[in-house]
Amino acid sequence: MEGKMKTAVMLEIGKMGFEERDIPTPKDDEVLVKLEYVGICGSDLHYYESGAIGDFIVKPPFVLGHEPGGTVVEVGKNVTHLKVGDRVALEPGKTCGHCEFCKEGKYNLCPDVEFFATPPVDGVFQEYVAHEAGLCFKLPDNVSTLEGALIEPLAVGFHAAIQGDAHLGQKAVVMGAGCIGLVSMMALKARGVTEVYVVDIMEKRLEKALELGATGVINGAKEDVAARIKELTAGKGADLVIETAGSEITTRQAIQITKKGATIVLVGYSKTGEVTLPMSIALDKELTFKTVFRYRHIYPMAIDAVASGKVNLKGIVTDIFDLDDVQKAMDYSIHNKAEIVKGVIKIHG
Amino acid sequence: MEGKMKTAVMLEIGKMGFEERDIPTPKDDEVLVKLEYVGICGSDLHYYESGAIGDFIVKPPFVLGHEPGGTVVEVGKNVTHLKVGDRVALEPGKTCGHCEFCKEGKYNLCPDVEFFATPPVDGVFQEYVAHEAGLCFKLPDNVSTLEGALIEPLAVGFHAAIQGDAHLGQKAVVMGAGCIGLVSMMALKARGVTEVYVVDIMEKRLEKALELGATGVINGAKEDVAARIKELTAGKGADLVIETAGSEITTRQAIQITKKGATIVLVGYSKTGEVTLPMSIALDKELTFKTVFRYRHIYPMAIDAVASGKVNLKGIVTDIFDLDDVQKAMDYSIHNKAEIVKGVIKIHG
Amino acid sequence: MEGKMKTAVMLEIGKMGFEERDIPTPKDDEVLVKLEYVGICGSDLHYYESGAIGDFIVKPPFVLGHEPGGTVVEVGKNVTHLKVGDRVALEPGKTCGHCEFCKEGKYNLCPDVEFFATPPVDGVFQEYVAHEAGLCFKLPDNVSTLEGALIEPLAVGFHAAIQGDAHLGQKAVVMGAGCIGLVSMMALKARGVTEVYVVDIMEKRLEKALELGATGVINGAKEDVAARIKELTAGKGADLVIETAGSEITTRQAIQITKKGATIVLVGYSKTGEVTLPMSIALDKELTFKTVFRYRHIYPMAIDAVASGKVNLKGIVTDIFDLDDVQKAMDYSIHNKAEIVKGVIKIHG
Amino acid sequence: MEGKMKTAVMLEIGKMGFEERDIPTPKDDEVLVKLEYVGICGSDLHYYESGAIGDFIVKPPFVLGHEPGGTVVEVGKNVTHLKVGDRVALEPGKTCGHCEFCKEGKYNLCPDVEFFATPPVDGVFQEYVAHEAGLCFKLPDNVSTLEGALIEPLAVGFHAAIQGDAHLGQKAVVMGAGCIGLVSMMALKARGVTEVYVVDIMEKRLEKALELGATGVINGAKEDVAARIKELTAGKGADLVIETAGSEITTRQAIQITKKGATIVLVGYSKTGEVTLPMSIALDKELTFKTVFRYRHIYPMAIDAVASGKVNLKGIVTDIFDLDDVQKAMDYSIHNKAEIVKGVIKIHG
Repeated sequence: MEGKMKTAVMLEIGKMGFEERDIPTPKDDEVLVKLEYVGICGSDLHYYESGAIGDFIVKPPFVLGHEPGGTVVEVGKNVTHLKVGDRVALEPGKTCGHCEFCKEGKYNLCPDVEFFATPPVDGVFQEYVAHEAGLCFKLPDNVSTLEGALIEPLAVGFHAAIQGDAHLGQKAVVMGAGCIGLVSMMALKARGVTEVYVVDIMEKRLEKALELGATGVINGAKEDVAARIKELTAGKGADLVIETAGSEITTRQAIQITKKGATIVLVGYSKTGEVTLPMSIALDKELTFKTVFRYRHIYPMAIDAVASGKVNLKGIVTDIFDLDDVQKAMDYSIHNKAEIVKGVIKIHG
Repeated sequence: MEGKMKTAVMLEIGKMGFEERDIPTPKDDEVLVKLEYVGICGSDLHYYESGAIGDFIVKPPFVLGHEPGGTVVEVGKNVTHLKVGDRVALEPGKTCGHCEFCKEGKYNLCPDVEFFATPPVDGVFQEYVAHEAGLCFKLPDNVSTLEGALIEPLAVGFHAAIQGDAHLGQKAVVMGAGCIGLVSMMALKARGVTEVYVVDIMEKRLEKALELGATGVINGAKEDVAARIKELTAGKGADLVIETAGSEITTRQAIQITKKGATIVLVGYSKTGEVTLPMSIALDKELTFKTVFRYRHIYPMAIDAVASGKVNLKGIVTDIFDLDDVQKAMDYSIHNKAEIVKGVIKIHG
Repeated sequence: MEGKMKTAVMLEIGKMGFEERDIPTPKDDEVLVKLEYVGICGSDLHYYESGAIGDFIVKPPFVLGHEPGGTVVEVGKNVTHLKVGDRVALEPGKTCGHCEFCKEGKYNLCPDVEFFATPPVDGVFQEYVAHEAGLCFKLPDNVSTLEGALIEPLAVGFHAAIQGDAHLGQKAVVMGAGCIGLVSMMALKARGVTEVYVVDIMEKRLEKALELGATGVINGAKEDVAARIKELTAGKGADLVIETAGSEITTRQAIQITKKGATIVLVGYSKTGEVTLPMSIALDKELTFKTVFRYRHIYPMAIDAVASGKVNLKGIVTDIFDLDDVQKAMDYSIHNKAEIVKGVIKIHG
Repeated sequence: MEGKMKTAVMLEIGKMGFEERDIPTPKDDEVLVKLEYVGICGSDLHYYESGAIGDFIVKPPFVLGHEPGGTVVEVGKNVTHLKVGDRVALEPGKTCGHCEFCKEGKYNLCPDVEFFATPPVDGVFQEYVAHEAGLCFKLPDNVSTLEGALIEPLAVGFHAAIQGDAHLGQKAVVMGAGCIGLVSMMALKARGVTEVYVVDIMEKRLEKALELGATGVINGAKEDVAARIKELTAGKGADLVIETAGSEITTRQAIQITKKGATIVLVGYSKTGEVTLPMSIALDKELTFKTVFRYRHIYPMAIDAVASGKVNLKGIVTDIFDLDDVQKAMDYSIHNKAEIVKGVIKIHG
């Protein structure tokens, strides 16, 4: 498909613009996808605000966005499992396939991964993308491309739940009720965990958590989190905590509220990269800490979970912006964190 | 067996003394053990120096010592697997048997455990002890009661190795070459790990590590630990790190030197109970942190490992003191940390 | 509580009767439970029909029944977690607590277990029983004692699901839609498995399976099971099969319908104890076979699953008989297998 | 490297011959290896004797042999980790890299694998082979190309040991002391298992087992296997059995001699593909059956195990034949099973 497409680019810190670029041509193993929705992730906002995350430094013009859903409009000649018109969720990381990590199935740790919107690899705040067909997962009829876009953050939630071996019979706590906290809560519930409590300090987010199925919520700014969890678990403590807030205080609370022998899954990054923790308590309780870097092998299962109604993925979206309004979308997202749970850029459709 | 026995007691911080106490009478499920050797553990020294560990506060006169080996001299009427004359290693913790943790096999987490030399439960720097027969493990002919005493610290090393799922094909690093570091190193090797490197800052301990089978040693005071491990692992990093030093610097190094997806087992307690860690790096590498509180289900296997020559347990002993010299033993142990690897009190034999 | 109680006894093969026995007195760690419902298990019927299961031989008069629910009417002096009036489900096996299996948490393998209605230990087709308080689990208000009785078979289903590591994202098949097949299906669904197909040859049972939540059912007498599963799994095969029918044909089908690398959980006992299996196919697929002997650590979680509505336990009951009609209950159960899914004896209430 | 090479081909059942073929040209990701030793596997003999294994049917002229070791003589332009002169062990299966199984790290289950000497893919009883560089593993100086060839069967032994989670503290039994039985025994020992008993009915093989490190051996034709294992395990039974003989009698013995809760790993294929097993006993013991199809992720670790002296791989070789004598090699191997443990074809070197 020849032609030009609109591409939103980050021009400098805090400034978005547009470029006209060639619609890409899919290789033999690729499909061309007309994008419909792309989620705005915290990392997009971080690059936009600060120009870098750790060693990954934006060199403008740079395309943000790595949570895409769309419709296949062209199919490479080796592709057999997709056809034009299929609606798909796109897993954003192309891996090498032959390193030690790829061979062992831990492809999320591939050192040579090319991941949308991680410098120097461009993202997908644009009209079309050519992507490895094996990373494009067909959506069933009852799953929209908006939901398809949100499979990406949901995958993080499921990977966290799996890292923590979440299962029926546990009492779990999610620290943080932002997008990742909410999808983690829904992932825990989808895996059968009956009681999932969510902790945050923003009321709107806690309301959202309840609306989406949390068993209960705790406002850490107003309540004693440890005392509440003790009460809710008959004095025993939580079997599993998913920490998505990335703050030292919530990580310390996680250690405090867990039962002996329990597992804490760390998902949130702290601002400085460092946290001071009471590890002697962790040793006395013989806790396990698992961590999460992106996800692996999640897309088909996550799509099924949405299709079967186990996860209300649409429910996390609070704001939808047109591609033309991408500057506003970014600025609004940064300045209204208490109001926004999840923003999405609508590209087409 | 009626009569009196000599009991070494801690009279106050830094002061040992003796009491004459009744030789205990074993209950129906117990045996009476004439003690031959009792190891001196870092926790004994800590109580002796400071009077407390966390919430456990010594109320003198208090008996220290929880690493005993001896010979059965009397047998309770319900005991069938031991007889007078059997030499045994004594597992020091009596558990309740019916709490959630005991029922699930994680008896080391039993909240009602009675553990030798953990206030208010007396230890065994004394001539005899009556102990639950199920916690007394018969030693084969080629394992001495000195080694029997040291099964206790070895059990910590094995539990650490098991928590880290140590296995053939890994490259492992042990931070710290004190008693627990050395038994961890030997436990790793006994489980089949081919390459085990040991890091410490005391030369004498590193020499001991080499003597006992470490693949290589690194003096953290003189060498760049991260650079050396990188070199020794062909740039890949360690698959497994056992942290026994309990310092912030070694815990940070553990995070730095591990391969993506690796496991760090935390065994050592830090002085303050708190450590500041670069958790963002841990998340980027998707590391797992396991922790160790004592051990469970280790004694028979550890005794076998010693009997079969896989572990040179005698080799860690550097100093043997008579019970009469317990004051000197404690003081010398505290003031000569660089010289002593493992001190033991000889009671009889 | 002094007095006499009615006890149904098996007098000989195929013949039930009654005895008046003393109401038992609970020991210090026991409670006395007034029984309300006791399920009729296939093993009860087997003892009734043939007088033995393997080496376990009935010596009349023998009390059958091991699936009890009732109300606490007296409490031993050491019992703190239960009080008079609490409604409870009773786990039927008292274990020794100190053998290797008990210590490691696999108490279902305890060689010295005393299990209701397993000769020579009497069961509970009777008005009262004194039972270890730790084996009596309090029911929440919204769980009836009828459901409490059925926690026992449900526990088998959950143990099967756990042995198979059932989880969200799998496609599972249950062979057999008798009581154990149905509770296995519900256990799989409660643990998050989205698609669970049930195979049987009796229409009534398949209807029950659908009514209780099976994704689909297959009548093995009328349909090609392998072809149908292939179709339902897009040619891939099942990730997990729970075999509860105990027949050679269904076990062979299980091997045939699984995906490479899949797990088959064997729950059903075959009539002869022997089955001929195409193990070369199992090796080519690198299948895992797990087996199930009773269950462990299931009751609290199973009760929660019923209380939270994840499992419709009442739904499996098709027939309720009075204790006075126990002879009829047994005979009817044996002669109407196609009609009955689960029969229960009502004792009181 | 242009030129012709000698290739041994199976011309018909029971008849070998030679062809002159072009030396292959390595692709960009391949290396050309001058073969030095190629082991003779039971499957080679089976194809030679019967023309087929299951659905895999030999269409002559067909090249047998899939256990190769040799020296790199040419390197494709994309290959960086190997150079001319490197001695290598060749893993024989090229996998697709993108199917579900490959992506999850279970590449041995890849449905599109091309495996040496599995029809219609030719094997390597020939002078040279071009092979994917990622499947060629460099041998350290102290590991010969003869040992390199035998890494292939050793990999099966290690995969069996890993499937069974073999570890220190277990008592294990290997059924069968053929090549796979012996490498399984050595793999168990290398992973730390202290006691490994080997059962066979051929004295020469049992002697070999003892020579290579078995703790003890049992001649199943002369001794009561179950009674001996009971005696050797203090009445408890084996923790782990690796079944490599493929016979019904040894598989039944495996079920008989295991402890409750134990694992049996099935490696050997039975002649008919079917076995009749006492599965009720397996259920009563709650046994787990794991199976083995080839191996995955084993080569680097297996090479290390040989290099470090944990496995005496040379020790299993009883007969070395020149390539020119391939007909004799095959015939002799078939007719002298009791004498031969492992035969190898020497190609060069």
